[in-house]
Amino acid sequence: MATPKKIEVIAAHPYPIWLDVGLEDLGQHLESVLRPGTSVLVVSQPQIAELYYQRLADGFKAYSIHLAVFPNREEEKSLARLQELTAEAVAAGLDRDGLIVALGGGVVGDLAGFLAATYMRGVRFLQVPTTLLAQVDSSIGGKVAVNHPAGKNLLGAFYPPIAVWTDFTTLDTLPWEEIQNGLAETVKHAVLGDVGLFEFLEEHAEGIKGREGGIWREMIRRSIAVKVRIVSEDEKEKGQRALLNLGHSFGHALESVLGYTGITHGQGVSIGTVAACHIAQRKGYLKNQEMQRIQNMLQVFGLPAHISGADSEELLLKMQADKKNKEGKKVIILPVNIGRAAESRDCSDDELREAWQEVLV
Amino acid sequence: MATPKKIEVIAAHPYPIWLDVGLEDLGQHLESVLRPGTSVLVVSQPQIAELYYQRLADGFKAYSIHLAVFPNREEEKSLARLQELTAEAVAAGLDRDGLIVALGGGVVGDLAGFLAATYMRGVRFLQVPTTLLAQVDSSIGGKVAVNHPAGKNLLGAFYPPIAVWTDFTTLDTLPWEEIQNGLAETVKHAVLGDVGLFEFLEEHAEGIKGREGGIWREMIRRSIAVKVRIVSEDEKEKGQRALLNLGHSFGHALESVLGYTGITHGQGVSIGTVAACHIAQRKGYLKNQEMQRIQNMLQVFGLPAHISGADSEELLLKMQADKKNKEGKKVIILPVNIGRAAESRDCSDDELREAWQEVLV
Repeated sequence: MATPKKIEVIAAHPYPIWLDVGLEDLGQHLESVLRPGTSVLVVSQPQIAELYYQRLADGFKAYSIHLAVFPNREEEKSLARLQELTAEAVAAGLDRDGLIVALGGGVVGDLAGFLAATYMRGVRFLQVPTTLLAQVDSSIGGKVAVNHPAGKNLLGAFYPPIAVWTDFTTLDTLPWEEIQNGLAETVKHAVLGDVGLFEFLEEHAEGIKGREGGIWREMIRRSIAVKVRIVSEDEKEKGQRALLNLGHSFGHALESVLGYTGITHGQGVSIGTVAACHIAQRKGYLKNQEMQRIQNMLQVFGLPAHISGADSEELLLKMQADKKNKEGKKVIILPVNIGRAAESRDCSDDELREAWQEVLV
Repeated sequence: MATPKKIEVIAAHPYPIWLDVGLEDLGQHLESVLRPGTSVLVVSQPQIAELYYQRLADGFKAYSIHLAVFPNREEEKSLARLQELTAEAVAAGLDRDGLIVALGGGVVGDLAGFLAATYMRGVRFLQVPTTLLAQVDSSIGGKVAVNHPAGKNLLGAFYPPIAVWTDFTTLDTLPWEEIQNGLAETVKHAVLGDVGLFEFLEEHAEGIKGREGGIWREMIRRSIAVKVRIVSEDEKEKGQRALLNLGHSFGHALESVLGYTGITHGQGVSIGTVAACHIAQRKGYLKNQEMQRIQNMLQVFGLPAHISGADSEELLLKMQADKKNKEGKKVIILPVNIGRAAESRDCSDDELREAWQEVLV
């Protein structure tokens, strides 16, 4: 059976995720939905644009295509940068019938998506994810946002793209550290929603590390499928979708306390997943042996289970301010065996403290 | 028959407009949808808050209510102010279950609504309009936005409130110039959608100017009904809703060319409506006598038909950049008799120039 080239996200506005397609083919693919001459604004970052913009633009000769780039820094995911990009969109003649394309990783997708969600009260948006993290996770599900001094992703929207265009060849040049960010989310997807994917990761760990084409494609496709299934069930995060936050309540607190330096998002998620495993194990949701398998899996990909230089009380305080908390209670996602997860609102501060102490060295 | 106290807006998320209700009763009214202790952020401006915040807050004793005010200037409808208000929302402990209340006129509604649309990707929003313009027009329909140096309302969203709470007594202290802004929109509503309302305005012009209770209420209710009918038919402005733009393509160009000084929004709309009438009359959509009736109506309310100090070529250029234009063509709304309107995309620059010359002195 041929592997499907398309996975459909079911939502108020359904959209396809195209897999294993070429950047240069996107323009032609859009012919049925974009009138010739339509204004298209590609939002990207300098290094990514240098590698891929021309390949993309070559396919858009029938349109009025423009490029807007911004520096490759997390601080750029801000209202200030939104203000700048808006000016560039106007200068490029982008109108209500226009299209905004995010060419890049998570920061590009979030920022370009928030621009698309708000520019003239919403123009069409298309994701072209070029990192593993963006391909398996952030480009899917319609969450877009900018940061605010008071919180990450504090201002945003649920704004689904019209499509996600996933060209696997953009991963070829990606540094290993970037790959690890995506692998952390893939392990997370396996743990919370697909035991078969977890076994696949265990079995093909070497092939994955060696970026072997067939294995690589299969891993990405299955990781995407988990995310698609969950966001299709719960587009606006009223229930199920919160499960995707596995490892993230801990991870975000960690990234925040460390000031987003010296730790990657993937490392934060990895340590956070381990912390969640400890609580789940103590509560009896997860066998000790399962916890070991999860830790091993992360370790094989070079993802950490421990970190130094943070204080558990400070971390606990950060978790108190998590925007996913509900009715004043901390919402923690816990693995239930491998392949399932559940939301817990009854983790005591002592339990959280103990979990932090397991991962802090 | 008793006048209904509620008009329902039909939309993806329907919501009621409560009429002739008291500020002090809102809190109790919300008991069925807000848990006790829910965080509520009221966004307002100093003068309005001074007059009305306490009356509102008295009804919210079961909740955790906070007030955030910003200076009464159009420049405040910006991303910079959104950044400030976001910090205040965090400081007030506003979470995903919280509620943002806009207490004020159009600027407050637009800005508070955009904050609600984007804060944590969307929290509940409620409109408490305190000006005639906000009551008959801007609080209805879910459009929220901020301005950008490159354009008014350039960044925004369609984000319906959970309800509009309209207390007519807030109009008692409103200066006449503010009333005129609302009357301009009311005349517009009558011209584009309700000949009966137009006749009512003609018949009761003196009572309206004298703010006579019964007439005043009837006028507001009928003006709201026109807006509700149109936005219910077309929430996201794909068709019908564009008709509400009658007079506004001209009016916005005028306000913009004059730098938003020396002209109120109502004056811009009034002159713009007259300009649209001239084109409609030349094209044979509007009888000369109907045009006269519309001009008289505006004049009775002290709204202008002419203005000096602007250049028709510059105005024409501004209209070129209107974000409502489609496929490169200027979209102009024209009255068709009194009580109907239609969208025209074939107004030539010569026709527009002539219309401008009719209103420029």
